[in-house]
Amino acid sequence: MIFHRIKSDVVAHLSYFIASGSEAMVVDPQRDVGVYLDLAKDQGLHIKYIFETHRNEDYVIGSRELSHYTGAEIYHGPWPDFKYGNKLKDGQLFKIGNIRVEALHTPGHTPGDMSYAVTDLETGDHPVLVCTGDTLFIGDAGRTDFGGPEKRKEWSENLYNSIYEKLLPLGDHVLICPAHGSGSVCGSKIAERETSTLGAERLMNPLLQLSREEFIKLKIEEEHQYTPYFKRMEKFNLEGAPFMGLNPYIQSVNPHEFKEYLDNGATLVDTRPPPAFGAGHIEGSYNIPVARLAMGGWVLPYEDPVILIVGNQSDVDHVARSYARMGFDNIEAYLAGTIVTWYKEALPVKPMRMITPHDLKKSLDAGEDWFLLDVRTKEEYESGHMRNAVNIYAGLVPTKLDGLPKDKPIAVYCKSGTRSSFVSSILLRNGFENINNMLGGMTSWIKAKYPYTK
Amino acid sequence: MIFHRIKSDVVAHLSYFIASGSEAMVVDPQRDVGVYLDLAKDQGLHIKYIFETHRNEDYVIGSRELSHYTGAEIYHGPWPDFKYGNKLKDGQLFKIGNIRVEALHTPGHTPGDMSYAVTDLETGDHPVLVCTGDTLFIGDAGRTDFGGPEKRKEWSENLYNSIYEKLLPLGDHVLICPAHGSGSVCGSKIAERETSTLGAERLMNPLLQLSREEFIKLKIEEEHQYTPYFKRMEKFNLEGAPFMGLNPYIQSVNPHEFKEYLDNGATLVDTRPPPAFGAGHIEGSYNIPVARLAMGGWVLPYEDPVILIVGNQSDVDHVARSYARMGFDNIEAYLAGTIVTWYKEALPVKPMRMITPHDLKKSLDAGEDWFLLDVRTKEEYESGHMRNAVNIYAGLVPTKLDGLPKDKPIAVYCKSGTRSSFVSSILLRNGFENINNMLGGMTSWIKAKYPYTK
Amino acid sequence: MIFHRIKSDVVAHLSYFIASGSEAMVVDPQRDVGVYLDLAKDQGLHIKYIFETHRNEDYVIGSRELSHYTGAEIYHGPWPDFKYGNKLKDGQLFKIGNIRVEALHTPGHTPGDMSYAVTDLETGDHPVLVCTGDTLFIGDAGRTDFGGPEKRKEWSENLYNSIYEKLLPLGDHVLICPAHGSGSVCGSKIAERETSTLGAERLMNPLLQLSREEFIKLKIEEEHQYTPYFKRMEKFNLEGAPFMGLNPYIQSVNPHEFKEYLDNGATLVDTRPPPAFGAGHIEGSYNIPVARLAMGGWVLPYEDPVILIVGNQSDVDHVARSYARMGFDNIEAYLAGTIVTWYKEALPVKPMRMITPHDLKKSLDAGEDWFLLDVRTKEEYESGHMRNAVNIYAGLVPTKLDGLPKDKPIAVYCKSGTRSSFVSSILLRNGFENINNMLGGMTSWIKAKYPYTK
Amino acid sequence: MIFHRIKSDVVAHLSYFIASGSEAMVVDPQRDVGVYLDLAKDQGLHIKYIFETHRNEDYVIGSRELSHYTGAEIYHGPWPDFKYGNKLKDGQLFKIGNIRVEALHTPGHTPGDMSYAVTDLETGDHPVLVCTGDTLFIGDAGRTDFGGPEKRKEWSENLYNSIYEKLLPLGDHVLICPAHGSGSVCGSKIAERETSTLGAERLMNPLLQLSREEFIKLKIEEEHQYTPYFKRMEKFNLEGAPFMGLNPYIQSVNPHEFKEYLDNGATLVDTRPPPAFGAGHIEGSYNIPVARLAMGGWVLPYEDPVILIVGNQSDVDHVARSYARMGFDNIEAYLAGTIVTWYKEALPVKPMRMITPHDLKKSLDAGEDWFLLDVRTKEEYESGHMRNAVNIYAGLVPTKLDGLPKDKPIAVYCKSGTRSSFVSSILLRNGFENINNMLGGMTSWIKAKYPYTK
Repeated sequence: MIFHRIKSDVVAHLSYFIASGSEAMVVDPQRDVGVYLDLAKDQGLHIKYIFETHRNEDYVIGSRELSHYTGAEIYHGPWPDFKYGNKLKDGQLFKIGNIRVEALHTPGHTPGDMSYAVTDLETGDHPVLVCTGDTLFIGDAGRTDFGGPEKRKEWSENLYNSIYEKLLPLGDHVLICPAHGSGSVCGSKIAERETSTLGAERLMNPLLQLSREEFIKLKIEEEHQYTPYFKRMEKFNLEGAPFMGLNPYIQSVNPHEFKEYLDNGATLVDTRPPPAFGAGHIEGSYNIPVARLAMGGWVLPYEDPVILIVGNQSDVDHVARSYARMGFDNIEAYLAGTIVTWYKEALPVKPMRMITPHDLKKSLDAGEDWFLLDVRTKEEYESGHMRNAVNIYAGLVPTKLDGLPKDKPIAVYCKSGTRSSFVSSILLRNGFENINNMLGGMTSWIKAKYPYTK
Repeated sequence: MIFHRIKSDVVAHLSYFIASGSEAMVVDPQRDVGVYLDLAKDQGLHIKYIFETHRNEDYVIGSRELSHYTGAEIYHGPWPDFKYGNKLKDGQLFKIGNIRVEALHTPGHTPGDMSYAVTDLETGDHPVLVCTGDTLFIGDAGRTDFGGPEKRKEWSENLYNSIYEKLLPLGDHVLICPAHGSGSVCGSKIAERETSTLGAERLMNPLLQLSREEFIKLKIEEEHQYTPYFKRMEKFNLEGAPFMGLNPYIQSVNPHEFKEYLDNGATLVDTRPPPAFGAGHIEGSYNIPVARLAMGGWVLPYEDPVILIVGNQSDVDHVARSYARMGFDNIEAYLAGTIVTWYKEALPVKPMRMITPHDLKKSLDAGEDWFLLDVRTKEEYESGHMRNAVNIYAGLVPTKLDGLPKDKPIAVYCKSGTRSSFVSSILLRNGFENINNMLGGMTSWIKAKYPYTK
Repeated sequence: MIFHRIKSDVVAHLSYFIASGSEAMVVDPQRDVGVYLDLAKDQGLHIKYIFETHRNEDYVIGSRELSHYTGAEIYHGPWPDFKYGNKLKDGQLFKIGNIRVEALHTPGHTPGDMSYAVTDLETGDHPVLVCTGDTLFIGDAGRTDFGGPEKRKEWSENLYNSIYEKLLPLGDHVLICPAHGSGSVCGSKIAERETSTLGAERLMNPLLQLSREEFIKLKIEEEHQYTPYFKRMEKFNLEGAPFMGLNPYIQSVNPHEFKEYLDNGATLVDTRPPPAFGAGHIEGSYNIPVARLAMGGWVLPYEDPVILIVGNQSDVDHVARSYARMGFDNIEAYLAGTIVTWYKEALPVKPMRMITPHDLKKSLDAGEDWFLLDVRTKEEYESGHMRNAVNIYAGLVPTKLDGLPKDKPIAVYCKSGTRSSFVSSILLRNGFENINNMLGGMTSWIKAKYPYTK
Repeated sequence: MIFHRIKSDVVAHLSYFIASGSEAMVVDPQRDVGVYLDLAKDQGLHIKYIFETHRNEDYVIGSRELSHYTGAEIYHGPWPDFKYGNKLKDGQLFKIGNIRVEALHTPGHTPGDMSYAVTDLETGDHPVLVCTGDTLFIGDAGRTDFGGPEKRKEWSENLYNSIYEKLLPLGDHVLICPAHGSGSVCGSKIAERETSTLGAERLMNPLLQLSREEFIKLKIEEEHQYTPYFKRMEKFNLEGAPFMGLNPYIQSVNPHEFKEYLDNGATLVDTRPPPAFGAGHIEGSYNIPVARLAMGGWVLPYEDPVILIVGNQSDVDHVARSYARMGFDNIEAYLAGTIVTWYKEALPVKPMRMITPHDLKKSLDAGEDWFLLDVRTKEEYESGHMRNAVNIYAGLVPTKLDGLPKDKPIAVYCKSGTRSSFVSSILLRNGFENINNMLGGMTSWIKAKYPYTK
């Protein structure tokens, strides 16, 4: 049995390529399917089955694209009513070479979630791994809010039952293969470690230390963000996304062509690190550094053109592929030669202020009047924040501009300075002027031993 | 000015990527256009123009595919009546960054051939290179037989005039960038060296040492092969080939699925080296070693499936891409795990005999009766061949089987043993039984100092 | 916590790169350490510790080489008396970022074997994985014969105790990371699957289904090969192997230079597949196909030059690196342009006969007198072999030539035809003439439903 | 004949790999010789000769390193008295496969300069290319100042004679292969284009449009920079540089280890783009952006440790290799995780001011008192500069600090803003405080149509 875990960075999505003999299966393929085709080709394998764990909300699933190249059959759970592929029954069995796959209906995250228990018959008759989708993560479990408040209790109960009645009984020794890793919007407490077992989760996953009642209560009450692009993902994954073919290709254009795009209303994303953005950027751009591309899901349009400023030519591919995974097929051009070509044309640039924690501390101590904006999640905020800071999650800032003052300086901070740069760029776009992004974020503030509250 | 020469191995085709400032042009792009997209991307360049030198016969041109991704404008000569792109005027000028391109009408190979003289204005006002298409090669000049016998004189005269009136006057110092390198079916005497100048050709190209009359006479009389797949290339390049998208993907299948393909009449190509093929192959297969894939153009069908045996998994990509360049979009599957998986299933194999020159010599000396078949070109044959050998060019063997004896052993040879293996496999397919491929070919025979005639 | 498993193909050796925060550790590094340096570089990590599980016999350990580049500290067990690095105490603890490593003394395979239990403190206080070296494999356990017959009982008891008292108590949920995968000479029953847990082994590892007495008896009695090159590995790994630096570089030479090497007594290895070797090879060469390079450990010299014939230029690197891992720093040259350049020079070649199972069956049925030589391991032989076949393990054939007949045809077979080709080439080197390698091996014989005995 | 041009970016050095049959030669190899080994390996070639055109001043030559791996013989000219390799005679001939190389003594740049004329005997008896070293560039010719003022006339005359008596007579049609391309300190007017011919140079090279007297006068008078690291290159290239082996490997360290380096006096190079550096950098660092690493030759020490801040992890290799080519074997560490890890530790950072041309213009118009520092070359300065700007070439600023005012703002500019950022960082290191780097440099100022003088 051959096993590969494939990670899609930006959306922290994990897919699995599992093979035996000359046959292979893929669980939850990403949209750019070259990686699976290459694995199959390098080892002379035939991809026979594609299994989906559930209708994903946060990325485009590549099942149909992969099936196009390989003829593989697609299988998914009983909900929703997919427009492609085959519906599974609980307990349905498959054979791939010398391995047996059992499809387990594990509702909770959605009513249609499936898990796949894999037994390697070469070594024995006990399952060795289980693909748990969004049912069980390493250190967390799936969110249960996509059905709306009225379904939340039912779904949360289902989730508990699925974990305790379907997954854990497989045995402590079974590896778990979840659909998301650390950094996903589908589970905020997911560990950085990417391998675990049912036993390790039983012993250490914080949610599995709770009673049934506590678990369900927590699941009903926990807060999650619903990024606007989810809507499109739901539609794409229900019906099948448009065919992508060759990896997305983005035109390079010169400063004057770039300006023309801007004059025609294109949305501008600048993926450079915050300090570079701060030193000089084009008015109206969003700062979405490469490390946080997923933030684009909060603000980018689907129909109108999006254009890019990148720090390195080599980032273009990564940005294009990442946004294609989020269904953005409208990234049309990037500025050739980085922003230096813009500078050299003497075209207008604007700075964005950066402030060190030390300077901010001094200013606060001197009694200056600041609006402190903490753009982390509620959980992060509650774990320790600057005194008097107001918490609005980064993605929600565009909808809550009214509450922010234009008559005094705003210091924006997050954990390390990246999300706060995104937010600062949003504020600048919206006419706020005295915006200061705090270098190093709350991490730096705490390291400097400055006071904060919980 | 930036300059890249791109070589498509199997068809020995050369294309050119030339850029200045932030703009680029491509001359005669290959069908799999990723290489140009990557060059543009890595250097932040915008591909603005695609220039075709002529309607190619031996490979699929990628102009439309490249234009799809880049929006580049396509230009070509006045003949034939292309169904896409723009028609050029002799002397038409283009600007790419700081370079100037002049389109020169240089008919001869076809009535529509264009050359492109490039001047780097950064360094001065003299042209620095000229893309000569199939008009002038390094060591050779274009063939003039595609218009049929009735046009041959006129086209040959045109070719002479184009070289002497349009190209050479540009100056000895000008680099030439032809459309083909050594190994092309478009010129049998093309040198291995890939850089030259008009001056070097004027001094050393054998054709340019002839008088006008001699040149034209030679061009009218010289013999060329017309591979069957040319017909399709002409059609594709007139109308635009089907869109290819992602690089061709070929399924790996297991021995039983592979056998099913064969039972349904698929054409089988075995790309292993001749000795491996000789030691054991599947009945009915063509031996077309990786180094000689272009021979496939003589025998492969366009509509029905073709399937592959490869020596190394890593050859699959190369074979697929090479055949896609020749318009074969029907390579459907390859045997997973090389032929060993076939052996292990105890499925039937056949040997093909190899004979060393030493053993053949001994047998001939002993008076045994052999039919000696020389499958090289007429020119090669005439430059030295085994006594009593009959010359039939490899590609033509399928149409001349009647002249070959079934009642005595046939020794097949070429230059090194590759084309002769291809021919041997054809003979075996057609019921000939006593076929012997000579190891090391004529090269080996001569090295062994065995007698031969001219 | 970041985790990478690195596989060294030919010796089926597994090493591990584990990191947390900005620090990393490597367990049992291979000799060509670029892979670890790249992992560290790509993620901005500092390699702080190198842990060896034991004094290896089958490959050169890269600890000193890796420490040279990184300054990492090397740790190993209390036996033998290593000439470099630091000696560990049972239970000694280390901290790497946010993980804790506990060194466990797990003697058995040797008296100095160590295992390393890793706890990811980010997720909890239970160990999540254990590097088990040659103590516990997936589906097998370490061999206990390296101390000689007098130590075998004691070492086997130790092994049992180490597994039951040190490893299994860590918990069913703990991943195991052994030092070898399938194909290793260190454990013939190791599964192809490369991930498992203590629980899965407890449930399914055949050795862990035995009683203490059965386990120890089996360990004392099981047969293992001791490849001659082990001697050098033991010395290298005790003292530290010579510094390798840049990856090994092997000269390409032309046929005449190659012949000179041969005339001076160089050992010739031909890594082409058996059928190609059979069709024509240079007299005196060993056939060691790329897939079975480790067989070279049985016959290659350490001091005198070894030279290569490869099927593909691209194999040279793989062969060079693989043999460097086995301590062969004397691979000096390969024939440029594959064996075709040799053929073209009309230099002498010899065939090696291949026989299909069908032809062999016919001949046997016709009463012809064959010596059937089965060169698989004793275990493979006993699981089913041709009637009247004599079993000599491939590696031992050079020492048992006296028992083989020169007066009748010998059919050599293994599982698929590769080891038997190695043996056939040994027999040809030693003056045997009527040698026939069976295509597809026992696998093919069984698939053809021909009779065999157990 | 096979031909490859290899470019070493930072020092704009060009080397050549030329092969025929199974043999190859390399002209002026770079220090990291893997590229030549790979070319040889991929095509089954044996590197037989290494030719040096002259004792280089600006990069470490890799002849001895390459000879170590290949056994190739090294040849160079009669001056200076090299401690390795063989001395050539004018007119000495070599054979590589089917090509002939003639060594031509072409003194001028130094008394020992050699050129190598290459004839491809396969196509005829005229030379097809000539490696011209530092004698003739595309658009320029070698500098003649390394012998000091007293030798300058003689060397300049020699240079003229070498070009007119040795090179041009080879014929207009001959390709030239110089040792440097655009961006080299060895010729400020070298064209961006990398292919040319003797004829094209005769027609367009500005120096070849001059009379003998004008040429020699210009060569005697032209000004060149002598970067401090040249001294070490001269020594290394006379005696042979230290063996490098595996590519240079640089440790990643965490912020606290990094700070320790700084506290112990390490020199800090920050290779990020100027705006990022401006937004926040560590006090005392040099800003040497990746695109201008060669500036390091002016200020970096050879003995004491140098440490790095990079914008992208992936830059580390490029920086390490580039500085190794300049002989800096003392790059010891880089900050893991880019400067963000420094920010997060709340360690101190300093900004460097950037000013747009628009803001500077406004301020000047308002009568504010600025010191305008133009750090381009004298030639660039004279071709157009800001009114009242003082010209000090970037590399010379450290030696001319006394002339700069500490009591008023200094605006530093170059062509695009990179060298000026380097200079700004030098000034900050030296206690200047009111330093402003002009974004987009003189290019931007001119595009904005602001006034300037020549």
